[in-house]
Amino acid sequence: MSDYKDLMTDMGERARGAFAALSGITSAQKAEALVAAASALRHSQPGILAANAQDMIKGRENGLSDAMLDRLMIDAERLDVIASAVEQVAALPDPVGAIIDRNERPNGLIMERVRVPLGVIGIIYESRPNVTADAAALGLRSGNAVILRGGSEAMESNRAIHAAMVAGVTAAGLPEHAIQLVQTTDRAAVGAMLKAAGLIDIIIPRGGKSLVARVQEEARVPVLAHLDGICHTYIGKAADQDKAIAIAVNAKMRRTGICGAMETLLVDQDYPAPGPLLRALLDAGCEVRGDDAIMELDPRTVSAEAEDWDTEYLAPIVAARMVGGVDEALAHIADHGSHHTDVVVTEDEAVANRFIQHADSAIVMWNASSQFADGGEFGLGAEIGISTGRLHARGPVALEGLTTYKWVVRGTGQIRP
Amino acid sequence: MSDYKDLMTDMGERARGAFAALSGITSAQKAEALVAAASALRHSQPGILAANAQDMIKGRENGLSDAMLDRLMIDAERLDVIASAVEQVAALPDPVGAIIDRNERPNGLIMERVRVPLGVIGIIYESRPNVTADAAALGLRSGNAVILRGGSEAMESNRAIHAAMVAGVTAAGLPEHAIQLVQTTDRAAVGAMLKAAGLIDIIIPRGGKSLVARVQEEARVPVLAHLDGICHTYIGKAADQDKAIAIAVNAKMRRTGICGAMETLLVDQDYPAPGPLLRALLDAGCEVRGDDAIMELDPRTVSAEAEDWDTEYLAPIVAARMVGGVDEALAHIADHGSHHTDVVVTEDEAVANRFIQHADSAIVMWNASSQFADGGEFGLGAEIGISTGRLHARGPVALEGLTTYKWVVRGTGQIRP
Repeated sequence: MSDYKDLMTDMGERARGAFAALSGITSAQKAEALVAAASALRHSQPGILAANAQDMIKGRENGLSDAMLDRLMIDAERLDVIASAVEQVAALPDPVGAIIDRNERPNGLIMERVRVPLGVIGIIYESRPNVTADAAALGLRSGNAVILRGGSEAMESNRAIHAAMVAGVTAAGLPEHAIQLVQTTDRAAVGAMLKAAGLIDIIIPRGGKSLVARVQEEARVPVLAHLDGICHTYIGKAADQDKAIAIAVNAKMRRTGICGAMETLLVDQDYPAPGPLLRALLDAGCEVRGDDAIMELDPRTVSAEAEDWDTEYLAPIVAARMVGGVDEALAHIADHGSHHTDVVVTEDEAVANRFIQHADSAIVMWNASSQFADGGEFGLGAEIGISTGRLHARGPVALEGLTTYKWVVRGTGQIRP
Repeated sequence: MSDYKDLMTDMGERARGAFAALSGITSAQKAEALVAAASALRHSQPGILAANAQDMIKGRENGLSDAMLDRLMIDAERLDVIASAVEQVAALPDPVGAIIDRNERPNGLIMERVRVPLGVIGIIYESRPNVTADAAALGLRSGNAVILRGGSEAMESNRAIHAAMVAGVTAAGLPEHAIQLVQTTDRAAVGAMLKAAGLIDIIIPRGGKSLVARVQEEARVPVLAHLDGICHTYIGKAADQDKAIAIAVNAKMRRTGICGAMETLLVDQDYPAPGPLLRALLDAGCEVRGDDAIMELDPRTVSAEAEDWDTEYLAPIVAARMVGGVDEALAHIADHGSHHTDVVVTEDEAVANRFIQHADSAIVMWNASSQFADGGEFGLGAEIGISTGRLHARGPVALEGLTTYKWVVRGTGQIRP
């Protein structure tokens, strides 16, 4: 453990040095460096695919599931997607340097809040090796130094991707340690990373519940939390029936494994057509676990247990309940929700506004599918995750979420009376 | 300890209930409630002064210093100031509900980021009982529920102030538990408060180093850090000599006990008049602890030890050093600063801009006294403290710093392709 403390101190100090050096580098240079990194990824295709093949062999030996192997796998096409994503981040507007607000005081002092990078960002993630490139690109575009810690099953792939990106950004004149990868698979290294307060400014965990829980339990460094998405869709009494069916089926079934997928359906007891709504979900291949009122509507539904209301299925299963109005829907969401994305479907604007006002969710939607919970769909270009915490950044976190601000005060010799 | 866990769970749940109720209350009602609270403070003068007299007697018995007794003392005039401060917060514009940005997507979805309260704020503070009123007012104005934990030496005063404010806000129709006070002096209650993750959204410590250090060490709840202010003033080669003297003397001597007071003076080796600058500080009654080059300039200076560069004196003492230019000044600040407020004095705009760009401080000032580091002076109306952390809020934290945002997405039935 103390070895890893030394390792993280060394990496943290190098990252801080790189961060300081980045503050002298223009936005255009950072963009060029990312274009160079993308080019290096493409030129390194043989090495990256060979490294990934090693991970795949080891993964099969270790009995990884087909789903995990698929997430791990990189072929020429996927590498091209990874490189293109880096180029897309390079093309995003740089938030750094923007003046958030400006205030001239009666004494002539001019106060400006200017956007600056957060500093050193630690990203802890699991099997998908594309996160190595994505996270490095988002961090660097916004002027941060990043320390990456990927899953052990993707170590060779991550090393190869990291080496290519470092080659690209250093060729463009950026500091080598702007992007560092923790090169050990020992989990104790994560512990040291979580305690590197003063060296790492923020930890962003990307992964399953057990990873996020460990990070939140152990971290002394602030954490940008990305917890589960127990997303609700409330079908109001005055919902348009076609919209209700289209939204519910899309929110659940378009992709069941993403955090913005609907997990609980709340149907107003006065909504006139609950049967066709459930039928549409069932016909689409969704298991419906309902309360008694729901189960009366269709013999194919099964009974929901207490824990269903708190479960993120990430599967073609939905928990469904009848509620006595918008306030009962809100109370259910307050008790069981995860502050991610919650949806109201109604043509009644007053009901929609009540839901929007009172649902304490990072994202509240009216008449839209919760599957839109995605930085790209929000027009943010890319995202590093969806924050379910309340501090600093909430909902889709993109470049701006990786920045903070400083106050710049310009005077002409003012002293305080 | 487990008793305090139960206590904090109860208080936290009541606070969350109050927070939910506050989301249905208009800005005007919140302002009226604070005006009523101020009025209740004024009407409760006899009780508050009697309670404070008890604290003062106990404080003298316990041997509190004169400075601490002065901080603790409330007389009619000070109570009037406390009540007026609550009225001033009532009159501040409410940040809640403001639309931060708005984005209409090609598919017709409208994405808005809307400012909302943070939630439940825990404030842990030391002897000044006016913080009870200030913190409650700032928290409530921005729609939050607050849990206050003041110093044991001010317990009777805090209880009386809290009771008056609760009487005022409940009379105005606000929930009773919007403002709660931890009514025990046992330090274990603070430990339970720091671990109430999920119930308390953020902890704001206001007090000395040992309090803040304990909070940062123990907290499982996010902390808005208010650490020390080791503030630097760098006098550049091209500084105006009159401004340099006026700013340095004001930054150090106007009030030596505030976090924005200068603690270290960095003088460019090519600044032509270092002697008069030091003389002005010495003549004003400041002890100057210098490096060799500084000590050569005036026989009244004394020698600085290594720890002086890392010391927040909060006293009429300054550490002073000659530096070889703006980059050496920046390097010194990077090594020894506390990311609070750092100042450059120069008429050379290029030097000023280099300093502004590279000083990694919450507040960077050009040709002004660091004593302006104050929410009121920044035009924010009031402040709950100066954040030296990088996340969420930086520098003076006022109403906006006590808010977050939610994303509101308005659609017409859109589903994701």
